[in-house]
Amino acid sequence: MIEERNIEHQHGRDYYHEPPPAPLLDTAELKRWSFYRATIAEFIGTLLFLFLAVSTVVNYKEPNYTDKCSRIGYLGIALAYGGVFSVLVHCTSGISGGHLNPAVTFGMLLTRRMSLIRAAAYMVAQCLGALFGVFFVICFTNSDEQQSSEGVVNVVTRNYTNGAGLVAEFIGTFVLVYTVFSSTDPKRNARHSHVPVLSPLPIGLAVFVVHLATIPITGTGINPARSLGTNLIYRSTTEAMDDLWIFWVGPFLGALAAAVYHKYILRAGAVKALRSFRASGSSGSQLPV
Amino acid sequence: MIEERNIEHQHGRDYYHEPPPAPLLDTAELKRWSFYRATIAEFIGTLLFLFLAVSTVVNYKEPNYTDKCSRIGYLGIALAYGGVFSVLVHCTSGISGGHLNPAVTFGMLLTRRMSLIRAAAYMVAQCLGALFGVFFVICFTNSDEQQSSEGVVNVVTRNYTNGAGLVAEFIGTFVLVYTVFSSTDPKRNARHSHVPVLSPLPIGLAVFVVHLATIPITGTGINPARSLGTNLIYRSTTEAMDDLWIFWVGPFLGALAAAVYHKYILRAGAVKALRSFRASGSSGSQLPV
Amino acid sequence: MIEERNIEHQHGRDYYHEPPPAPLLDTAELKRWSFYRATIAEFIGTLLFLFLAVSTVVNYKEPNYTDKCSRIGYLGIALAYGGVFSVLVHCTSGISGGHLNPAVTFGMLLTRRMSLIRAAAYMVAQCLGALFGVFFVICFTNSDEQQSSEGVVNVVTRNYTNGAGLVAEFIGTFVLVYTVFSSTDPKRNARHSHVPVLSPLPIGLAVFVVHLATIPITGTGINPARSLGTNLIYRSTTEAMDDLWIFWVGPFLGALAAAVYHKYILRAGAVKALRSFRASGSSGSQLPV
Amino acid sequence: MIEERNIEHQHGRDYYHEPPPAPLLDTAELKRWSFYRATIAEFIGTLLFLFLAVSTVVNYKEPNYTDKCSRIGYLGIALAYGGVFSVLVHCTSGISGGHLNPAVTFGMLLTRRMSLIRAAAYMVAQCLGALFGVFFVICFTNSDEQQSSEGVVNVVTRNYTNGAGLVAEFIGTFVLVYTVFSSTDPKRNARHSHVPVLSPLPIGLAVFVVHLATIPITGTGINPARSLGTNLIYRSTTEAMDDLWIFWVGPFLGALAAAVYHKYILRAGAVKALRSFRASGSSGSQLPV
Repeated sequence: MIEERNIEHQHGRDYYHEPPPAPLLDTAELKRWSFYRATIAEFIGTLLFLFLAVSTVVNYKEPNYTDKCSRIGYLGIALAYGGVFSVLVHCTSGISGGHLNPAVTFGMLLTRRMSLIRAAAYMVAQCLGALFGVFFVICFTNSDEQQSSEGVVNVVTRNYTNGAGLVAEFIGTFVLVYTVFSSTDPKRNARHSHVPVLSPLPIGLAVFVVHLATIPITGTGINPARSLGTNLIYRSTTEAMDDLWIFWVGPFLGALAAAVYHKYILRAGAVKALRSFRASGSSGSQLPV
Repeated sequence: MIEERNIEHQHGRDYYHEPPPAPLLDTAELKRWSFYRATIAEFIGTLLFLFLAVSTVVNYKEPNYTDKCSRIGYLGIALAYGGVFSVLVHCTSGISGGHLNPAVTFGMLLTRRMSLIRAAAYMVAQCLGALFGVFFVICFTNSDEQQSSEGVVNVVTRNYTNGAGLVAEFIGTFVLVYTVFSSTDPKRNARHSHVPVLSPLPIGLAVFVVHLATIPITGTGINPARSLGTNLIYRSTTEAMDDLWIFWVGPFLGALAAAVYHKYILRAGAVKALRSFRASGSSGSQLPV
Repeated sequence: MIEERNIEHQHGRDYYHEPPPAPLLDTAELKRWSFYRATIAEFIGTLLFLFLAVSTVVNYKEPNYTDKCSRIGYLGIALAYGGVFSVLVHCTSGISGGHLNPAVTFGMLLTRRMSLIRAAAYMVAQCLGALFGVFFVICFTNSDEQQSSEGVVNVVTRNYTNGAGLVAEFIGTFVLVYTVFSSTDPKRNARHSHVPVLSPLPIGLAVFVVHLATIPITGTGINPARSLGTNLIYRSTTEAMDDLWIFWVGPFLGALAAAVYHKYILRAGAVKALRSFRASGSSGSQLPV
Repeated sequence: MIEERNIEHQHGRDYYHEPPPAPLLDTAELKRWSFYRATIAEFIGTLLFLFLAVSTVVNYKEPNYTDKCSRIGYLGIALAYGGVFSVLVHCTSGISGGHLNPAVTFGMLLTRRMSLIRAAAYMVAQCLGALFGVFFVICFTNSDEQQSSEGVVNVVTRNYTNGAGLVAEFIGTFVLVYTVFSSTDPKRNARHSHVPVLSPLPIGLAVFVVHLATIPITGTGINPARSLGTNLIYRSTTEAMDDLWIFWVGPFLGALAAAVYHKYILRAGAVKALRSFRASGSSGSQLPV
C-alpha cells in the first residue's frame, strides 16, 4: 500500500537496471556447475515438496486412526501444501530461483528470465522429483485406505465439469505466477533490495489460499509436476489419467496469462509511456510513468 | 516495540521527507499509463480477491460433501479472506498501492495521498471487480445449497440490531485502515525504508482477526466493494439489499475515523510540538517531538 | 541461527551505541505532545485489542448458532489473541513502542528504557483501555450464554491449584517479555537496523503459543490489563475477583524475571567480559565478547 | 525465486567473504562470557520449548474437558511445536545462534561453523533443558489421562516399521537443517544482510510442516533433545526407551545428509567451477559460477 507515484519518482534512476532478456539457447550455461547445481536443487526440492505434502494427506487417512476429531481437515491440507512449498522455496531460491513448479518455470521462460535449456532442465527435474517423492510415500503406506487415491490425485470432482476444473486451475496458477512475478519484479527489487528473501512467504500464502478455494473442485493442482507425480503413481482410477491433461493445460495457460498481464499491462505500459515521454522532449530526472 | 524516543532523535533529519499532499484534481495524471495500469490492477485484484474468497465459502457448502469434519469452519473462512487479501495486496502494492477496498482508498484520499480523480477511478474499478468476481463464482456453482446466500452475503444476523452491525463494520474498518496507515506512514518509511514490502502481512492479519471477531455479527464486510459484489449478485433475500447501506456507511465512517485519528492525534501532534519547538528558539539536530 | 561469534566481531564497532538509561523522573517529557500521543495510542490500542479478542470468544458462544462444527475452537481463540495483539503492536509501535500490556511496560521500566512517569501513564491508559474494550463487548452481547463469563474471564480452572496458575502466568509472561526484549535489544538493532518493523510478528506468535499452552489452565492472562478488564466487567463469579491477584502477580514476576535474565545473564555478561578484556590490555578492533 | 544468475554476477565481489572454518578445539572460547551466555541461552531456550509445546499437548488431554469440539487437534499441536520453536529461535538467535536442537548443532559442527567444544556444550545444555522442561510439565499434570504418554512420547506407531520411522525422522531433520543452512548461508548473507532476522519464520514453518507430515508416524521428533526429554521422563511404556535410538540416529543422519548436500552439492560446486574458471585464464569481474 505504498504511494506509488512518489516512490517511483524518488527511485527514477534505478528504473533501467532491468537485466537483459536471457538468451533462448545459452550453451555456455552447460559448462557451469551452477546450472547442474540448480537443476539438482529443483529435483530435490520438488521431491521433498511432494513427499511431505502427500504424506500429510495420506497419513490422516489411516483407518486405525480412531480420534477423527484430531484430523487436520482441508484447512490442514491447504496449510501443508502452502507451508511446505514456502519452506522449500526459501531453501532453493538462492540456488535455482526456487520454482519447484513447471508452470512457474514456464512463466519465467516467457518473460525471458531464463534460457530455454535451463527451463527444460528444470521441468524435467521437477517432474522426476515429483514422481520420486510420491513413489517414496507409496513405499511408506501400508493400509488399503491409505493407498486409495482420494484426496491425493488431482481429478475434477463429480459436481464440476471439466471446463470448471480447467478454469479453476487456470485462475489458481494465474494467482501463483502473478505472486511470483510481483516478488521478482526487477523494478521492485531495485527499490527494496531484500524482496527475494521475503518472497517465500507471499508465495506460500498464495498456494495456501488457492488450495482453500479449489480443493473441492479439483483437489488443486496448479503445478503440473505435482499432478503428474500423484496421478501417474496412484493409477487406481481411470479418471486420474483421463483428467491429467487439465492439470497441464490449465496451469500452463494460467502462467501464460500471468506473463502476458505482467509484461504487456503492468510493465509494457511503462515502456509505452516512456516512449511518449521521450517523444514529448521533456527532460529531468522524474519519469511520468 | 521500539524505544520511540531514541529512534526519533537519531533519525531527526529524516523527519521532513513527507511528500506534499496530492492535488485533488490532477488531470496530468490522466495522460500517464501508470494511472490506467493502476486502475486495471485494482480491478483485477479485487476480482481475484472476491473470486477466491467467495469460492472458498461456497465450495464448502456442497451438499454431496459427506465428511463434515473436513470442513474448514469459520477459522478457515477468516484465513481465506485474510490470506487472499494479503497475497493480492502483495501483488498490487507496487502498481496501485494495493487498496482493493473503497474504504482504504477513501482513507488515502482524506489524508491527501491521492487525487480525487484517482480515488474515483479506483473505487469504480474495485466495485466492478467485485461484481465480476462474484459473478464468476455464480457461474461455477450448481447445487442449490451452494447457491444459497448464507455465509456469502453481508447481512446483520438475527441476534444483532442494525446499530450493532454498523458499529462492528465501523470498528473493523477502523482497525484495517489504521493498519494501512501505520504501514504507509511516511515518517516510518523514512526510518525503515522497506516497510512497504512488509505491509501485506499485517494488513492480511488485520483482515483475518476482524473476520474472526465479526463473522457472527455481519458476515464481515469492512469493504464496500465486497459487500456490493456479493449482495447485488446473490439477491436471494430482501435483507441482502436492505442491509447494504450498513456495509457502505460503516466502513466509510471507520475509514474517516482512522484518518482523523491518524492525522490529528498521531501526526498533527507532531506538527504542534514542532511549532512550539520553533517558538522556543532551541536549535540542534534533536527534535523534542 | 547466526554464527554469533563472527558477526559480533564484524560489528564490533557498533557495540557501544546503546542508548543511555532513561531518567526515572523526566518532567520535560510532560511538555511533549509525543508523550500524550503515545499514551492515547496505548489506550486506543488496548481498547481495540480487548474489544476484538473478547468479541471473538463471545460471538462463538451464541446459542442460536446451530452449526457447532464451524466454531473456531481453542485454536481460533489463540489465533485471535495472538493475531489481534500482533496487528495492534504493528499499529502502535511507531508511536508508543506498542506495549499494550502493563507487564511489558514494567519490563521496559526495569531495564531503564522509559521513565517512571511514562510507565505509569502507559499502565493507566492500558487498564482504562481494557475496561472500555470489554465494556463495549458487553453492550453488544444479548443472549444469556454470551454474557456468561466462561472462556472470557481469567480464573484458575478446577483441575489446577492457584500455584500452578501462578507459574503458568509467570512462564507465559516471561516468554512474551523475553521475546519483546529480543526484538528491541539495542545491540541487535545496531546489527540489523530493521528489527523493530519485524517485531510484531514474533511477539504475536509468542502470544499465540502461550495461549495454546495455558488456555486450559487459566484462560491465559499474561497481561494484567486484559485480566482486569474482563474480570471487573464480567463479575458473574466470585472467582473472577478472587483470582485476579494471580493475573497481576504472575505477569509482573514474569516480566521481572525476563528483565533480570536479559540484563544480568545475556547483557551484563558482555560488560563483565569487556572489563576483563580491558584489564588484559589487548587492543585491536576485535572484541572477545 | 530470484534470477540467480544475474544476482550472483552483480554481487560477485561479495563472494569470498565466507568466514574461515571454526577451529575444532578453541580453548580461548572458554574464557569468554559469550560462550557461557550462549550455553545458558540454549538451556533456557530448550527448556521453554519443551515446557510450552508439551504443555499444549498434555492440557488438551484433560478428561474433565467436556467440549471435545474445542480441542486443537493435530493441526494445533503442529502449530504449537512450530510456533514455539520459531519464537525461541527468534529470542536466542542473537545470543547462541538459536539451535535448540542437537541435530542443528551437529550440522553446524560438520560444516565447521562452530568449535567442537561449543557444540558439545550446546548439546549437553539442550538435553538438560529438555529434561527439565518436560519435568516441569509433569509437576503440573494431575489427572491420569494427562499423565499418559500418548501424543507426548516419540515412538513409532503400530502401523509403521522401525525403518519407516527412521526414514521419517531422517527426512524431517534433513528438511529442518536444510532450512537452517539456507538461512545462514554466508553467501546469502552477503547478498541480503538481514537474513538472520528473518530465519525464525521459515525455520518455524519447517518444524510445523514436518510435524503435519510425520505426527501419525512417529509423533515427530527431529530433535534428539526433545525425544530424550519426553521419553526419559514419561517412561510409562517400554517402547519409549526401546525406540529412543531411532530419534537420535535418524536426526543425526538427517543433519549429516543436509550438511553433505549443502557443502558438496550446493557449495563445493562453486569451488570446483571457480577452479576451472581460474584454470581457463579468463578475467573480469563476472564469475561463471
